[in-house]
This record gives sequence, structure tokens and C-alpha cells, in this order.
Amino acid sequence: MLFLAEMEVRLPPDMPAEHADELKAREREYSQAAQRDGRWPHLWRVAGRYANVSVLDVGSIDELHELLSGLPLFPYLDIRVTPLARHPNAIDRGESDV
Amino acid sequence: MLFLAEMEVRLPPDMPAEHADELKAREREYSQAAQRDGRWPHLWRVAGRYANVSVLDVGSIDELHELLSGLPLFPYLDIRVTPLARHPNAIDRGESDV
Amino acid sequence: MLFLAEMEVRLPPDMPAEHADELKAREREYSQAAQRDGRWPHLWRVAGRYANVSVLDVGSIDELHELLSGLPLFPYLDIRVTPLARHPNAIDRGESDV
Amino acid sequence: MLFLAEMEVRLPPDMPAEHADELKAREREYSQAAQRDGRWPHLWRVAGRYANVSVLDVGSIDELHELLSGLPLFPYLDIRVTPLARHPNAIDRGESDV
Amino acid sequence: MLFLAEMEVRLPPDMPAEHADELKAREREYSQAAQRDGRWPHLWRVAGRYANVSVLDVGSIDELHELLSGLPLFPYLDIRVTPLARHPNAIDRGESDV
Amino acid sequence: MLFLAEMEVRLPPDMPAEHADELKAREREYSQAAQRDGRWPHLWRVAGRYANVSVLDVGSIDELHELLSGLPLFPYLDIRVTPLARHPNAIDRGESDV
Amino acid sequence: MLFLAEMEVRLPPDMPAEHADELKAREREYSQAAQRDGRWPHLWRVAGRYANVSVLDVGSIDELHELLSGLPLFPYLDIRVTPLARHPNAIDRGESDV
Amino acid sequence: MLFLAEMEVRLPPDMPAEHADELKAREREYSQAAQRDGRWPHLWRVAGRYANVSVLDVGSIDELHELLSGLPLFPYLDIRVTPLARHPNAIDRGESDV
Amino acid sequence: MLFLAEMEVRLPPDMPAEHADELKAREREYSQAAQRDGRWPHLWRVAGRYANVSVLDVGSIDELHELLSGLPLFPYLDIRVTPLARHPNAIDRGESDV
Amino acid sequence: MLFLAEMEVRLPPDMPAEHADELKAREREYSQAAQRDGRWPHLWRVAGRYANVSVLDVGSIDELHELLSGLPLFPYLDIRVTPLARHPNAIDRGESDV
Repeated sequence: MLFLAEMEVRLPPDMPAEHADELKAREREYSQAAQRDGRWPHLWRVAGRYANVSVLDVGSIDELHELLSGLPLFPYLDIRVTPLARHPNAIDRGESDV
Repeated sequence: MLFLAEMEVRLPPDMPAEHADELKAREREYSQAAQRDGRWPHLWRVAGRYANVSVLDVGSIDELHELLSGLPLFPYLDIRVTPLARHPNAIDRGESDV
Repeated sequence: MLFLAEMEVRLPPDMPAEHADELKAREREYSQAAQRDGRWPHLWRVAGRYANVSVLDVGSIDELHELLSGLPLFPYLDIRVTPLARHPNAIDRGESDV
Repeated sequence: MLFLAEMEVRLPPDMPAEHADELKAREREYSQAAQRDGRWPHLWRVAGRYANVSVLDVGSIDELHELLSGLPLFPYLDIRVTPLARHPNAIDRGESDV
Repeated sequence: MLFLAEMEVRLPPDMPAEHADELKAREREYSQAAQRDGRWPHLWRVAGRYANVSVLDVGSIDELHELLSGLPLFPYLDIRVTPLARHPNAIDRGESDV
Repeated sequence: MLFLAEMEVRLPPDMPAEHADELKAREREYSQAAQRDGRWPHLWRVAGRYANVSVLDVGSIDELHELLSGLPLFPYLDIRVTPLARHPNAIDRGESDV
Repeated sequence: MLFLAEMEVRLPPDMPAEHADELKAREREYSQAAQRDGRWPHLWRVAGRYANVSVLDVGSIDELHELLSGLPLFPYLDIRVTPLARHPNAIDRGESDV
Repeated sequence: MLFLAEMEVRLPPDMPAEHADELKAREREYSQAAQRDGRWPHLWRVAGRYANVSVLDVGSIDELHELLSGLPLFPYLDIRVTPLARHPNAIDRGESDV
Repeated sequence: MLFLAEMEVRLPPDMPAEHADELKAREREYSQAAQRDGRWPHLWRVAGRYANVSVLDVGSIDELHELLSGLPLFPYLDIRVTPLARHPNAIDRGESDV
Repeated sequence: MLFLAEMEVRLPPDMPAEHADELKAREREYSQAAQRDGRWPHLWRVAGRYANVSVLDVGSIDELHELLSGLPLFPYLDIRVTPLARHPNAIDRGESDV
């Protein structure tokens, strides 16, 4: 089950650099683990912004919220979620519909 | 080169059903041709709306506009385009970054 | 799996009354069937507007879109969907979490 | 009498963790008490956000404001309230219309 | 129980003048009846707009919606409703709190 | 001459409680004086928000601004003002049109 | 007493040219009469839009609404009104504060 | 003197194709004349939209409005104008600052 | 050449009162000098807000930006600029079109 | 390949002046280098705002993001990017289409 998640990062300007770096390192690990286990099939940077566009593949809304609220940067993220259904014009790509 | 395109369809309420059907049939063909030749790698329906979320893969902005403005439904679409860069946390999936 | 759906109805002002009445009658039947089979557990009118707030209980996003796009009034609805997760402070009400 | 309340939590980024934890613990107690006594029949988490969608059942607007402004997190909440009327298509569920 | 209602009138530009006049005459009667029976204690024109600001005094949300949706101009109104509670700084004016 | 004023209070989260309390006490006095002398005929709380809806009755725009900018909480208020004219459908209530 | 009025003109695209011309001619006369009698001290065109920025000088809000709602183009105008007070830094220009 | 103009084209869906074509042909001529005489130094298409981003070089605001309001498509354009000043970091390109 | 400038002042809540007072005193001087030399023909307070509506009369956009960015409060101002052209219905007032 | 970038600068009000000055000096150097090597063909100041309108000429979206995110002021910028295609009405200016 796919959800589009648009995430905007808003770090407080006075956060110490080391703290920010540590958060970002943990975010990287967390995000890559979810990419590897298939829950985060797409992750793109929005050009010119500290923001990303993601597609998430989860079994339930609870799992979606658990995944997103577990992000180390979650307290500093503004996330908009859009549920994605199969499009009638989408062709069968011989694999999952991700 | 990837672009997110969010498309909202707004058909005039008094468009004759046959005309709408014909446009939609042509839209389907056009869209599926672009999916097959690799320019339209992702196409999802926004749940609850006559709208889609798409990822397009083109060689230039001119090619992007040509692809979008050629859509049979283009006069009735409200399209917002977001250029997508590679995300530093994205893992290498052993294929294109689509 | 629960989704909040906020629906605004926008009938064209020149729609003949009989056509509107027929659509509304079919909408009523469709909506009540979905309420009875458990997919539409809550339906409220927004005071002062031709609009509703609904909670839908479906097994997948595709089922959600099928349910919503099948509404007889769908071409005239502006629907915003919000996925709802279980809240950590919600008490167990001894029944489903609807 | 039912009201939809959409609540967004915005804690100051520099609030000490212990203070936040204490507020959240009191919020939990307060919210669960209101759920148990019937004034807060529905409470859901908005997926991906530190936010909730609630339905409140109160005898008057004054009681509604008293309930909401008594929330321990109230100074950090952005709350939008929508009054809900009975929908003419709603079926009788053999209990209150909550 | 008081509600602020901000109403914007949007008549279709091609509505025949006689039809508009008839609707407005019925609106006037309806509105004045509700003013006289106490359900519509305040009615002001927004300067420069075909719009009004109203305060309504009703016993329930259902009664509020019944009152508003019964307006002859209702299909052409965009109404935003705000529930009003007693303000702690409001003085006792020796009459109802309207 | 009547103006609708919608006021939202935004106190800085780090304002010391005593300072806030002192401001609120002065606000109360100031507001009640203006209610008593007739310049502030209506004051309601917006349910669920630290906000109010007011109707002010002043002799000029300068007097309106003087009244509002004199509020002890003025530096923390976001105020939107709407000039109110007599509505042609308003009935004569045998007193001022407030 | 001064009010800023920002007016946007939205003529229906299918209004016959003669009707539009006649409305515009009457608008011109009406506007120039109000300019001459001092109620409309400033009238500017917003560059690139069928819109104007005006300053109106009236004795009351009722007079303001009468002036604006009497505009021949009023049914096609979207008007936003802002009440203007004397600015403490404004110098005395040896005439009215217009 | 430079102005950014962002123009969105909104043709009525029921405009006859020949009329639209004729307007577009005249628009093309008009636009190219202004490009050639130096008043319209930049003209780009917004990818995915029937819209453009333009930079105009005129001697006065009146000339700007004359240029824009003379566009054959002007009645169907939504134009937002932004005045552009020289940027202190801009390098001297050995020609005009266009 | 005239520009409408709508300025909103947003002083940080923790700015020391003396610093604010000194900035405001310099703002007053600066503004009055520009009023006297003709570059700032109109300055009004927006009723109920720490904001103003101004009309500026300058020879170029660069001069406009120099004037505005030189304001002592400039770092705390949110300014929206609208270029004003002569309105075809404006009467000749026997002086400049300010 | 051209992109419009609209950048708004939002420095924290408590940033020490020396730090701001140093950032601005580096921003100037960085920006001028990109102007000289052709990646930043246009840079204008938005009159009345600490903001700019830029046109960037890059070979890919990744290069665009690298250029923008490398700006010394990037953490304090709010950037909106619009991809620009060739306009069918644009004349050939005998050089690049910048």
C-alpha cells in the first residue's frame, strides 16, 4: 500500500552543529534501513529545498505512522501524506506496482 | 532527469459524455505509450480525487513540456511540476534512480 | 483501516432539478449501503455547508478510491482524504477502533 | 452535540524533555478521562504528523471550550473546530449518533 | 448557543433578474422571521461585498444547520461557521449574552 | 459605527507566567472599561482557540485604532478588522443597531 | 474617514461587448462624479490587471457601502476594504489627510 | 526598468477553436513585435502549464500596463507583476542589465 | 512613478524596549524626510495592526528599493509592492496624479 | 536548461552582525563565480524585499540542487524553483535562449 510523503525539514537555526550532524547521521541510517527492507521504495530531493519527496510502501496506516514518527528528524519535519491508489491507465510493469 | 507532476483533472460539467470518453481513451493510449518508452516511470491515482501523481523521466525541460502539453486532457489539467534531484540518503538500487 | 474524508458538494447551478434529485437519491442509497456493510462507519453534515465529514473503514487504498469514486455525486465532489492511525492516548473501547 | 476538532501540536524546540514528558503524561490522563466519561468519543492520530482528529460530544459550546482549553498542551495546540450536524443520509445505528 | 456565520453570496451571472429578485424577497422574509423569533440576533452587511456577518442563537447544531440550509439563497451561499463561547472578560449586560 | 474585530493571541512561549498574568489582568480591566462605556458592545471567545470575536462601536477609524492599539496584549495580537454596514434585511430592534 | 478599497473586475467571458461597454461607460461617469465630490480622492490602475486601488473618503461605513454597492460594475467586482487611520509618523501636509 | 510578469492563460472551455486560434496568432505577433523592439527581453514557458514567465523592460508603469493590457489574450490572463531592482551582487555583463 | 507599499512590522518579542524605541525614532525621521521631499506622498496606519499602507513616488525601481531598504525597521518589515498606473477613469486633479 | 529560482532570505533576528556579514560576503563571491561561469545568467532584487529572482542555467537537476544548496545563505533561504521551457512565441535572439 503506497503513500506519497512530502517532507520539509526545519531545523531550529540555533541547533548546535554537532547535534544536527548526529541527527542527520541517524536519519541516514534509519532511512537506508527502510529503503533496504522495502518500506521506502523511492526517495528524492526537492531541488533547491531541504525537503524530500518519498513513496512509502506499508501494510497499514499504523505502520506508516510508526515509520514516519520514528524518523530521528521527525520533530523538525513538516510531512504531508497522500494515499496513492492504482491508476487505471498504469501499465503492468511485471513487478510490484511500486 | 526526473520531475514530479501532480495533475488535477477538471472537465467542464457540460462536456458531452462521448467527447469526454474519447478524450479519456486517447489519454490512456498516450499515457501508456509514454510509460512503455520509459518517459513516464510512475503513475498513481490520488485516492478520492480525479487526479494523479506522476514521475516523469525526460532529457530536458522542453521534452517535459512537450510530453505534458501533448496530453489529450491537457486543456483541462492543472499541473504542478517539481524537479527531483538525487537524495544523498538514497541507496543505490542497482538500476536507474527512477 | 480508517480514513477521514471531507467532502464538499458543488453542483453546477444550471443542473436540472430532476437530474440533481436523481443523483441525490442514488447517492443516498449508495451511501447507506456502505454504512450498512461497515465501510462508512461515520457520516456527519458540516453545519452551514453542503458538505460532509466522513470516516471510512476499508482494507486498502484501492478499496477506498473505488468506494469514493463510485459515489453518484463524485464528479461534483471535492474530497480531501486524511489517513488516520491509532492514537497512543486512545482508550480501548471494547470494540473495533472505529 | 458533536464537534470535529483537528489539533496540531507545536512544542517549542527548546522545551526541556522532562517538561514535555510531564505535559504529555498529563495530557494522556486528561484525554482518557474525557474519553471515558463520553465527552471525547473519537480520537485518531493523523498519519505522519504530531496531530490528531477528534470528535467531541458536549452539551454546549461553553463546555466544548472548557474541555479544549483545559488540555495540558492547550498553549501549544492549533485547534480548528467544525460543528457537526446529523446527516440526512446517515442510517440509524441503534445507539447515539456518535 | 451562539454561532458566528459569515456568508458570501455568489449568484450565477446569468440568473434572470426576476428569479434573483424573487429569491431575495424570500430571503428577506425568512431572515426577518428568524430575527423576530430570536434565532438571528445580529445581521450586518460586510462593507463593499455582497456578504454578511451574522450571529445566530440556536439550541443545537442540527437547528443551526436547519436554519442555514433553509435560506432561500442557500445554494448560492458560501458560509463559514465559528462556534462562540462566553468570554471570561465579558461583562454581564443584564440580559442574555447575545 | 461598527467594526468586526477577530483577534488571535500569540504569547511567546518563553514569557514568564507572572508577566503574562499581569498583562492579562490589565487586558481584562481595559476590555471591561470599553465594554462599559459602550465602545465594545460584543465580546465572544472562539471555541478551542486563544482568540476572540468582537464588535466595536466607535466614532471614527482613528478611535478604532486607538482602542485596539491600546490593548495591553496588542503586541501579541493578530487582529483582522471588517467594517460593518447596516444590512437591508435587518429589522429595527427598537434600540441602536448594535 | 478613509478606506483603502482594492477592486478586481471579473466580467463573465460571454457578456456581450455592448453590454460591457455600456456598464463601463456608466462606471466611468459614476466614478468621476464621486471623484469630483470628494468621496473618491484616489484611483489607480494595478499594472497588468483589470483591477484598481482606491482610497475613499466617507462619513460612515453605511455611506461607504452605498458608494461601492452603487458601482455599475458592482456585481462583477471582488472588493477588499481596509480601514485607514492616521499614521503617527505622517506629516501635516497643510490640507486634509487624504 | 524591469518587471517580472508571470502570466497564466485561462481560455473559457467553450471558446470556439477558430476564435482561440485567431487570438493566439495575434498574441504571437504582438509578443514578437515587443520582443523585437526591446520591451520584452525574456519570454519562457512554464513547464506543464499554459503559462509564461516574462521580463519586461519599459520606461514607466503606464507603459508597462499599456503593453500588458494590449495583449490580445489579456481578458483571459491572470498576471502577477513584480518590480525588479538591480541586485548588489549582480556582475556587470558589459551590456544592459537585462 | 507610483507604487503601493503595504508594510507589516514584526519586531522580535525579545527586542529590548530601548532598541525598539531608537529604531522607531529613526524610522520616524527617515519617513518624514521622505514625505517632505515628495518621495512618500501618502502614509496611513492600517486600523488594528502594526502596519501601514503607503504610496511612494520615485523615479525608478532602484530608487524605490533604495528608499525601502534604507528604512531603519527594514529587517523587521514584510513589504508587498504593487506598481500603480494611471487609471483611465481618474479625473485630472490639476496637480500631479499622486 | 533554465530554471527560475525565487529566493527569500530569512536571517534569524539574533544572528550576530559579523556572522551575517561574513555569510553575505561569501554569498557574494559564490554568486558572482556562478554568474561568471554562466550558470547564473540573471539575478535581480525584488523591490522592497530581502529577496531575489534568478534564472539559472544548468545541465541537470542534480547540478541545480548542488548550485543552490551550496549557497552560503542556503540554510536561511526559502527557494521556489520553476522549470522553464522554450516559449513557442519567443524570437530567436541570435544567441543562447537565456
